[in-house]
Amino acid sequence: MFYTDGKLQYPVRVDSPNPLYAKMLQQAIGGIEGEIRVAMQYFFQAWGARGPKKYRDLLLQTATEELGHIEMLSTAVALNLEGSKPAVEKGVGASNPAIQAMLGGQDPRHYLSAGAAAMPVDANGVAFDMSHIYASGNLAADMYANIAAESTGRLLATRLNELTDDPGMKDMWSFLIARDTMHQQQWLAVLEELGGPQALPIPNSFPQGQEKGEFSYAFLTYGTEGTTPPEGRWSDGPSIDGRGEFHHEIAQPLGDEPVLSSPSDASFAQTEQVKGGPGASPLSGNPDRPEQMGGGTMDKLKDKLTGES
Amino acid sequence: MFYTDGKLQYPVRVDSPNPLYAKMLQQAIGGIEGEIRVAMQYFFQAWGARGPKKYRDLLLQTATEELGHIEMLSTAVALNLEGSKPAVEKGVGASNPAIQAMLGGQDPRHYLSAGAAAMPVDANGVAFDMSHIYASGNLAADMYANIAAESTGRLLATRLNELTDDPGMKDMWSFLIARDTMHQQQWLAVLEELGGPQALPIPNSFPQGQEKGEFSYAFLTYGTEGTTPPEGRWSDGPSIDGRGEFHHEIAQPLGDEPVLSSPSDASFAQTEQVKGGPGASPLSGNPDRPEQMGGGTMDKLKDKLTGES
Amino acid sequence: MFYTDGKLQYPVRVDSPNPLYAKMLQQAIGGIEGEIRVAMQYFFQAWGARGPKKYRDLLLQTATEELGHIEMLSTAVALNLEGSKPAVEKGVGASNPAIQAMLGGQDPRHYLSAGAAAMPVDANGVAFDMSHIYASGNLAADMYANIAAESTGRLLATRLNELTDDPGMKDMWSFLIARDTMHQQQWLAVLEELGGPQALPIPNSFPQGQEKGEFSYAFLTYGTEGTTPPEGRWSDGPSIDGRGEFHHEIAQPLGDEPVLSSPSDASFAQTEQVKGGPGASPLSGNPDRPEQMGGGTMDKLKDKLTGES
Amino acid sequence: MFYTDGKLQYPVRVDSPNPLYAKMLQQAIGGIEGEIRVAMQYFFQAWGARGPKKYRDLLLQTATEELGHIEMLSTAVALNLEGSKPAVEKGVGASNPAIQAMLGGQDPRHYLSAGAAAMPVDANGVAFDMSHIYASGNLAADMYANIAAESTGRLLATRLNELTDDPGMKDMWSFLIARDTMHQQQWLAVLEELGGPQALPIPNSFPQGQEKGEFSYAFLTYGTEGTTPPEGRWSDGPSIDGRGEFHHEIAQPLGDEPVLSSPSDASFAQTEQVKGGPGASPLSGNPDRPEQMGGGTMDKLKDKLTGES
Amino acid sequence: MFYTDGKLQYPVRVDSPNPLYAKMLQQAIGGIEGEIRVAMQYFFQAWGARGPKKYRDLLLQTATEELGHIEMLSTAVALNLEGSKPAVEKGVGASNPAIQAMLGGQDPRHYLSAGAAAMPVDANGVAFDMSHIYASGNLAADMYANIAAESTGRLLATRLNELTDDPGMKDMWSFLIARDTMHQQQWLAVLEELGGPQALPIPNSFPQGQEKGEFSYAFLTYGTEGTTPPEGRWSDGPSIDGRGEFHHEIAQPLGDEPVLSSPSDASFAQTEQVKGGPGASPLSGNPDRPEQMGGGTMDKLKDKLTGES
Amino acid sequence: MFYTDGKLQYPVRVDSPNPLYAKMLQQAIGGIEGEIRVAMQYFFQAWGARGPKKYRDLLLQTATEELGHIEMLSTAVALNLEGSKPAVEKGVGASNPAIQAMLGGQDPRHYLSAGAAAMPVDANGVAFDMSHIYASGNLAADMYANIAAESTGRLLATRLNELTDDPGMKDMWSFLIARDTMHQQQWLAVLEELGGPQALPIPNSFPQGQEKGEFSYAFLTYGTEGTTPPEGRWSDGPSIDGRGEFHHEIAQPLGDEPVLSSPSDASFAQTEQVKGGPGASPLSGNPDRPEQMGGGTMDKLKDKLTGES
Repeated sequence: MFYTDGKLQYPVRVDSPNPLYAKMLQQAIGGIEGEIRVAMQYFFQAWGARGPKKYRDLLLQTATEELGHIEMLSTAVALNLEGSKPAVEKGVGASNPAIQAMLGGQDPRHYLSAGAAAMPVDANGVAFDMSHIYASGNLAADMYANIAAESTGRLLATRLNELTDDPGMKDMWSFLIARDTMHQQQWLAVLEELGGPQALPIPNSFPQGQEKGEFSYAFLTYGTEGTTPPEGRWSDGPSIDGRGEFHHEIAQPLGDEPVLSSPSDASFAQTEQVKGGPGASPLSGNPDRPEQMGGGTMDKLKDKLTGES
Repeated sequence: MFYTDGKLQYPVRVDSPNPLYAKMLQQAIGGIEGEIRVAMQYFFQAWGARGPKKYRDLLLQTATEELGHIEMLSTAVALNLEGSKPAVEKGVGASNPAIQAMLGGQDPRHYLSAGAAAMPVDANGVAFDMSHIYASGNLAADMYANIAAESTGRLLATRLNELTDDPGMKDMWSFLIARDTMHQQQWLAVLEELGGPQALPIPNSFPQGQEKGEFSYAFLTYGTEGTTPPEGRWSDGPSIDGRGEFHHEIAQPLGDEPVLSSPSDASFAQTEQVKGGPGASPLSGNPDRPEQMGGGTMDKLKDKLTGES
Repeated sequence: MFYTDGKLQYPVRVDSPNPLYAKMLQQAIGGIEGEIRVAMQYFFQAWGARGPKKYRDLLLQTATEELGHIEMLSTAVALNLEGSKPAVEKGVGASNPAIQAMLGGQDPRHYLSAGAAAMPVDANGVAFDMSHIYASGNLAADMYANIAAESTGRLLATRLNELTDDPGMKDMWSFLIARDTMHQQQWLAVLEELGGPQALPIPNSFPQGQEKGEFSYAFLTYGTEGTTPPEGRWSDGPSIDGRGEFHHEIAQPLGDEPVLSSPSDASFAQTEQVKGGPGASPLSGNPDRPEQMGGGTMDKLKDKLTGES
Repeated sequence: MFYTDGKLQYPVRVDSPNPLYAKMLQQAIGGIEGEIRVAMQYFFQAWGARGPKKYRDLLLQTATEELGHIEMLSTAVALNLEGSKPAVEKGVGASNPAIQAMLGGQDPRHYLSAGAAAMPVDANGVAFDMSHIYASGNLAADMYANIAAESTGRLLATRLNELTDDPGMKDMWSFLIARDTMHQQQWLAVLEELGGPQALPIPNSFPQGQEKGEFSYAFLTYGTEGTTPPEGRWSDGPSIDGRGEFHHEIAQPLGDEPVLSSPSDASFAQTEQVKGGPGASPLSGNPDRPEQMGGGTMDKLKDKLTGES
Repeated sequence: MFYTDGKLQYPVRVDSPNPLYAKMLQQAIGGIEGEIRVAMQYFFQAWGARGPKKYRDLLLQTATEELGHIEMLSTAVALNLEGSKPAVEKGVGASNPAIQAMLGGQDPRHYLSAGAAAMPVDANGVAFDMSHIYASGNLAADMYANIAAESTGRLLATRLNELTDDPGMKDMWSFLIARDTMHQQQWLAVLEELGGPQALPIPNSFPQGQEKGEFSYAFLTYGTEGTTPPEGRWSDGPSIDGRGEFHHEIAQPLGDEPVLSSPSDASFAQTEQVKGGPGASPLSGNPDRPEQMGGGTMDKLKDKLTGES
Repeated sequence: MFYTDGKLQYPVRVDSPNPLYAKMLQQAIGGIEGEIRVAMQYFFQAWGARGPKKYRDLLLQTATEELGHIEMLSTAVALNLEGSKPAVEKGVGASNPAIQAMLGGQDPRHYLSAGAAAMPVDANGVAFDMSHIYASGNLAADMYANIAAESTGRLLATRLNELTDDPGMKDMWSFLIARDTMHQQQWLAVLEELGGPQALPIPNSFPQGQEKGEFSYAFLTYGTEGTTPPEGRWSDGPSIDGRGEFHHEIAQPLGDEPVLSSPSDASFAQTEQVKGGPGASPLSGNPDRPEQMGGGTMDKLKDKLTGES
């Protein structure tokens, strides 16, 4: 259950409203690197957390913070869309090409759909889509997803900070960038608790003996003849998890060309796709193979649909 | 530029075709944890790579491998949709409730749209959407995104392996799980080359002096009175990057309640939203504040649209 | 800024875990009628609210409540995915066709992607997409959007309640359905404060004299000859807003067939689409009309792109 | 079944073609507040209408009208993309910054994908997605969804009207805004027939005695200590439906912190998430609770997949 | 402008309602091969048609027909969701495993969201997305898109027909399949009028002399050594358009490895990505190349945003 | 399995970097007419190909080529985002309105999300969505989909070529346009092998005797009285497939108005929707009809969910 005092976590001030900057800020709200993403990701990881309770609590606390960051940025967008008095006083009016250009790039839906307020969309007006929420049930996998989110998030923040000279906006970013620093650290701290690199690969509860070990630490390359493979930490020496030796191999196909069955009647392929068609020999269909869906499972699907059992 | 020999990287064999397992396999093709995602992510990271050439080459090589994994899994789906002769021989026909149940859960589009073949969709038939491709221009951020992808990818693979007893399918997974192990290691190896934890926070090219340092290593909690904050590696001791000390603080709002301007005429808010409306005192609109979009920038947008400059 | 105590607003108990019901519950989390939708809609309306402060506060409070409802439902999903001990005790094991059928319909991603936890998706596994958040800047329009959301939300809740006999789940619904009742009432109360039906049409700040009044209260029908138009409150008598008289008219086209210009060279239409093509007479292109994009604006676009000004 | 005479419902004339305005107009075609949305929403409500026939007919008639509005707006877009002869005559050529700015903001796909014609996308080029069609089977819920659609629709229309000085475009809007007025009235008229506020809450066929009545008219707030709750029509006095008394309460958590089971083996959580992990005491897993998916239902899923019943 | 008589173009009768078949039918409504797609595609092609008027009229007429097909199929879905009396009379009740299995696969949103009616979604519940509407401004390109739509549409129809034994449904399909036959023919007839194969390539208004002719009729293959290229009509003999000779070549890279510039400061790449990093030699950055975005255009973007011109 | 040499299929050179052109180029990468679409479409068609092996091989070869085209275009985007030195030398600096305008239109995510590199999105920043991949299992249907893709693809290429004067870019397009020419020819060649127009309609394996023949070659029009139907190749003479005679008919409704059952209790329609409601006579519900979902199938769904069989 949640509570609010209606206040901002950190002051949001816009000295020179700028509708194009408002558009840019949307990336930090509804972009894949933005705050809706981290808030919702941590919430869903918390609500589904199994194992030590402290990780659930940690996720829930930080999710609650991120919700406040969406609030801050939405306020920043609204303020950037208010009448740009200071800009006008500087003499940059409608006849100034720079202002014209600026307006040409603003998000039309900030006016048309929202009447001067933030929307849960990115800098191109594409709505955030919750398929970006990663909550896998494996804590280590989730932590890497979280570090990735905070890394692209802090990167976005530094770029947005770079694009403005507004003192209010720069002050806001100095706070939000610091929080991203902490959140990167925080999820790395969990990984350290979970055993660090030695606890890899993820998931570590899968018995590694069941994987084909000769490929587990092999750096395979797919260059044509004469291509030099890239060398580095990954091509030689002990693996990061300490369970193997990195070594380089040129990849070879271990399988043949796949052979599918002929199309079944129920699939309504072109007549020419079945035996005796224009490219009759060789067929991909193998006479020793059963027919595809239709000969087998499709008939049963029909039986089921028509109630004949 | 790319080449193919038409062969599979590793043999794909299905002993007992199973249309419901075909549906499950789709998650590894078009799911967010799947092979299209990693192939395309590594390709776009490679094509936009700036900095040492070897990382570009590494990304390009591994992307090329992942393309072959989509091929393997698509073949596995097609084979699982072919007539389930072995199942029939075991005597599980149309009148068997287990088979009926199995069919009830299959993806109808495997027949309706594809005629018994794989599609670039997930296990629920939702198409893969390229917004999931992360390629940020920052190599370390990208590496964490890649480890996250390979971690959720290997986790998915172990779960799909768990759901089958088909020897062919289990053999395929023993290979693909091993490759995911290597790919996790590989991206971790790049991070080690890039300086490891000491090279954090990401991006490390942003001068950390510009962030509000007092919040960079503070573990903030948002519990109501009486809530116990979770303690761990993140709440005490040196930070992972060695640049600060973790410490716990109870979060306090540093900002006030935000005050937006009154709605402008051009926004066509309800009349009751402007001064003197039903909740007239206090207003959120501040008379000392400029009007919002419409009083200022909106008029200019109109001027521009109507060609009056 | 937000706070949490980690507790649930109302107890969530599942007596007989049921993975198919878990799938159904997803509609109330990530469906268009679900809780993410209302939480985010009220948040964005609050953060962009202009006019009397009390409406902003009201929206913010209720958004905060709805966040707790997502939490409750996510917990309900997780509990429904836990081992169905009671079901097993009732003797419905793997060999029972009813259980088999039930499993055939469960969301495979509950296992594959989430490891037995809720996801921000609907009952078909389609992720929630933030384009469903309506926050228009007009308070009355937003209130109608909110009533619509709470109406479809309560409707969904009654249907989900109908589908279960689990005492825990039914108890949860008795609470959530009551809250939907209140939220419907709440937004209707705001509309009453804003003037009720007399304050229509929305937006009421647009001077109604600028619309073509003869069509403002005309019930137009489009039936072919002999079709009887539906009669009701809308076809006769004073309008709901008291500003006009409803009356019925059979719609007539007031415009002609539209005539577009010929395609320009820059559009690379087929050669046959220009004058003298196979259907040369009559052309849709009007010689008195300027050419389309390409003859005019497209050339300028090219000039701009090539830096020639 | 449908018919057409190829004519426009109302004349569409563009005096000064303007490609940026063409982009803005797209919001009224493919935006969530646009005409595709209402046309399709009314069609699907009509085709699934159950109950008195006249509502089905009413929905079908209005849907048919809205289809003609998409036609009008698509024509308006095409005409705005034709060679801007008048603009050129006014002397605003390629070297004019205002024209340059205008072009900078146009939708590139109007040229690249459509060759100077309308597309079913919004003002940012995002395609309309049919998940926005609400047709719930409950007539009152649908009516509120329709009023919401017509309210945001008319709001959008007034904003688009505000952005243009083109006499042709303004004439078109004077008609379309009037129709939105009528459609708001029309759906309100249906609600009046259905009983008005007394017929609430929606759905009114659910026995209200089954909801926890003490929460049905309680205005709950979630402020931290010292926060003043917003007062208004919703916090005191009889409810709008006349079935209860509004009253204010400060929300209290009625549930505890949720406790999920330990992760099962089949979920492949990290080893550290199970008992004895780094945060071993206290666990979120409750030994008295059954295991989650995997211990129970997941084994059955596997049994089913592997044909062992 | 459009009209309706409320009747169905062809009778829709369901003898044995079947909710799983209702789900399958959704593919023909909201699937990419379905009727919303063709209706909307033809409408948008018509509304943007330039050139001979008769093609516009043809598209408009057929679009109007397709709208009636959505109506027929939506009716079919609603009827399939009504109480399956006949099925019950045949004795297939709740205790029958076949019925259980059938229900396990039905679309839960048919009940939860629609209360027993059609939705604009596909057989997996994924909403139709208007990005599938192709209307390019080139009549021949559009015709091929239309034939593709009618081909996958008729294929889907034959598969849906295959899955049912219901006489009413089979009768409906016998009509709809015939209409798909005609629509394939119709668009082929337009292509014949436009000049047939001799009028290729599309667009034929682009001067073919501007393309690199040596690649225009070359069948390039990308096999590794030893791979046999597929031979057929495409590898030898005159081209279909009669303007060239097909011939086979083994593809060779004509370009080098691409070299991008070093990352600029403004892009906040990792420090290690710039010169002197861990893989310092060779760099992908070329000292003779200008810096990327940030050195050049990014600074200007900032200047613009900060109003300094 | 796939291989790469890291080289470009054809040289990609940008003489005057242009960020707005970079945005336009995105349409050819992630647009529906772009290269990701064709690459993935041909791959999935190949991996699911049944019938003569040579078509599988042909599809696989061309898919492999298209992958290299994505690589070329991604390189072109990255190069267009590098510091526009030549432009600067021409004297078009930050104070130049043309440059300002250009920047106003660039994709902000090229900087914010990618740091100056290509993304898998279209010219409006909308990510490519794999639902656009058509692979139907019917070779002829797929070929038409492929010709449509190559036709809109070549059309897009000519338009992008038109928008640039950059010699490097124009050289690249002269190659890519030629390849599109070949690919159109190639798929047409397959159709010729499959029997050409005589092998229609698609699918030709469906017995045409099962369709209602009187509608198979009838050109139906839906004009109101007085509307002239468009005449052409489609309205008279032998059909293209030689199996019928084209003829014109004015469409007549052959079905009645559809009648659905009354809403069931379980659907929670408004009380007023059932018999005796405000529009009680006539009802759409037919007393001779079974109740809808809920009376029948819905009860069973509940039984199943509650384990009562």
